[in-house]
Amino acid sequence: MASKSKLSYGERAKHHTHPVARRLFGIAESKKTNVVVSADLTTSKELLDIADKLGPYIAVLKTHIDILDDYQYSVVEALKDLAVKHNFLIFEDRKFVDIGNTVQKQYHGGALQISSWAHIVNCTMLPGEGIVQALTQTAEREDFPYKDERALLILATMTSKGSLATGEYTRLSVECARKYSQFVIGFVASRTLGEIETEAGPLENEDFVLFTTGVNMASKGDKLGQQYQTPKSAVETGADFIIAGRGIYAVPDPVETAKRYREEGWNAYLSRIGEA
Amino acid sequence: MASKSKLSYGERAKHHTHPVARRLFGIAESKKTNVVVSADLTTSKELLDIADKLGPYIAVLKTHIDILDDYQYSVVEALKDLAVKHNFLIFEDRKFVDIGNTVQKQYHGGALQISSWAHIVNCTMLPGEGIVQALTQTAEREDFPYKDERALLILATMTSKGSLATGEYTRLSVECARKYSQFVIGFVASRTLGEIETEAGPLENEDFVLFTTGVNMASKGDKLGQQYQTPKSAVETGADFIIAGRGIYAVPDPVETAKRYREEGWNAYLSRIGEA
Repeated sequence: MASKSKLSYGERAKHHTHPVARRLFGIAESKKTNVVVSADLTTSKELLDIADKLGPYIAVLKTHIDILDDYQYSVVEALKDLAVKHNFLIFEDRKFVDIGNTVQKQYHGGALQISSWAHIVNCTMLPGEGIVQALTQTAEREDFPYKDERALLILATMTSKGSLATGEYTRLSVECARKYSQFVIGFVASRTLGEIETEAGPLENEDFVLFTTGVNMASKGDKLGQQYQTPKSAVETGADFIIAGRGIYAVPDPVETAKRYREEGWNAYLSRIGEA
Repeated sequence: MASKSKLSYGERAKHHTHPVARRLFGIAESKKTNVVVSADLTTSKELLDIADKLGPYIAVLKTHIDILDDYQYSVVEALKDLAVKHNFLIFEDRKFVDIGNTVQKQYHGGALQISSWAHIVNCTMLPGEGIVQALTQTAEREDFPYKDERALLILATMTSKGSLATGEYTRLSVECARKYSQFVIGFVASRTLGEIETEAGPLENEDFVLFTTGVNMASKGDKLGQQYQTPKSAVETGADFIIAGRGIYAVPDPVETAKRYREEGWNAYLSRIGEA
């Protein structure tokens, strides 16, 4: 995996086995951005407004749809329209963390109908392998209507202070990513994980996508244990996509700020692939 | 903590420092039940129907409100009415698992307004201490409207096969329960945890409530890695409340079955406190 981070997004888009990863790399290449905005806003007006304004500069919009005080299904329909208009993917940061039988119902159907609008979702490994197995089963069902348009990330490390997403937890993340690569396209993590040895061993042409969260150009943390790094340091550490939240949406000029994150993230990427 | 499991629910109701725990033990004592039904149903009709039918025999109704295909806020209002009618508490099994800033928005407000209707919620320790700190902060805010009527459980172990909720994860669960006992009333776990040593040491008169999940009289597991134990074995192992799902609601006669779980759970409890 580490080796693929020296290749261009365009190159990776050509060769990836998963259609969602191909699309994601294609978007990054064509829009020259590896920025993901974590749109942690609590009203649909603010969410749709920021998605529309920042849409041109981001590859992915990350949501916590359940924090919307005025959630209605029409909001995600509007988000889907904006995703088409600006050519970005939607990543619902749901962090599934239950037994298989439950996560299947939480993902497909349910109150928030996540599978119907989120191109990408993520899960934790806390419950063990069954969670990835169960979500993969759902995505592979004959009657799953979004085949080849949905993918899973595994939350392999966390940026909050004292997180326990380390060691065996992270190792199992890699093992399950390799075992269920028909649905898993990569990780949310703060470093590349390809060097981690697992029973099955690396896949042939393994190319997991690395999303790194907690990216902020101005702050080092908040009062609730969140810890940050910069776009440059994140990409240098191996991030393919950098996730920034309050650093972009909670400043006076989100559009100008998003452009700055895009520029720093993109330059770090060019430098990494040897084109800077 | 282990020592308190030899006391009656009535005794524990009298002395517990947290009003929600007092209420919970009081309900168990008066209704002679330690059964929690995990109502993993996907339509509001089925959910409300099972809550009304089983209400008289349970202490707590456990929900995954987000799996309801036809969720509307009126459903939880109806649930609240049934909780009053039958005198049970509602436990939303949300398994919060995010950074502090996010879980605060997911718990209080948001699409599902969980704090407004769930007496009890739970969180995982994966993100580290900040998650418990953040949820406790929310519950202690001057303007939090449900003061003394809400409580938190920490998911300290899981019953799914290969779960990583073990070792340091479980130890941190106990440490945070002790540190934030103004909001945390106990654990979801498969064994008592009072013997676990933490920096702060046990609280004076520590009495964490133990909810044990994966209880089933008939089955040993499902195809997605879930593993079961019986009401009797769970209570013998220290469970104060036994959580059963498909074993009760997915059988031909849920009411008769709930009564059988109640009887087995209650007899095991009487035996444990030396009154059998």
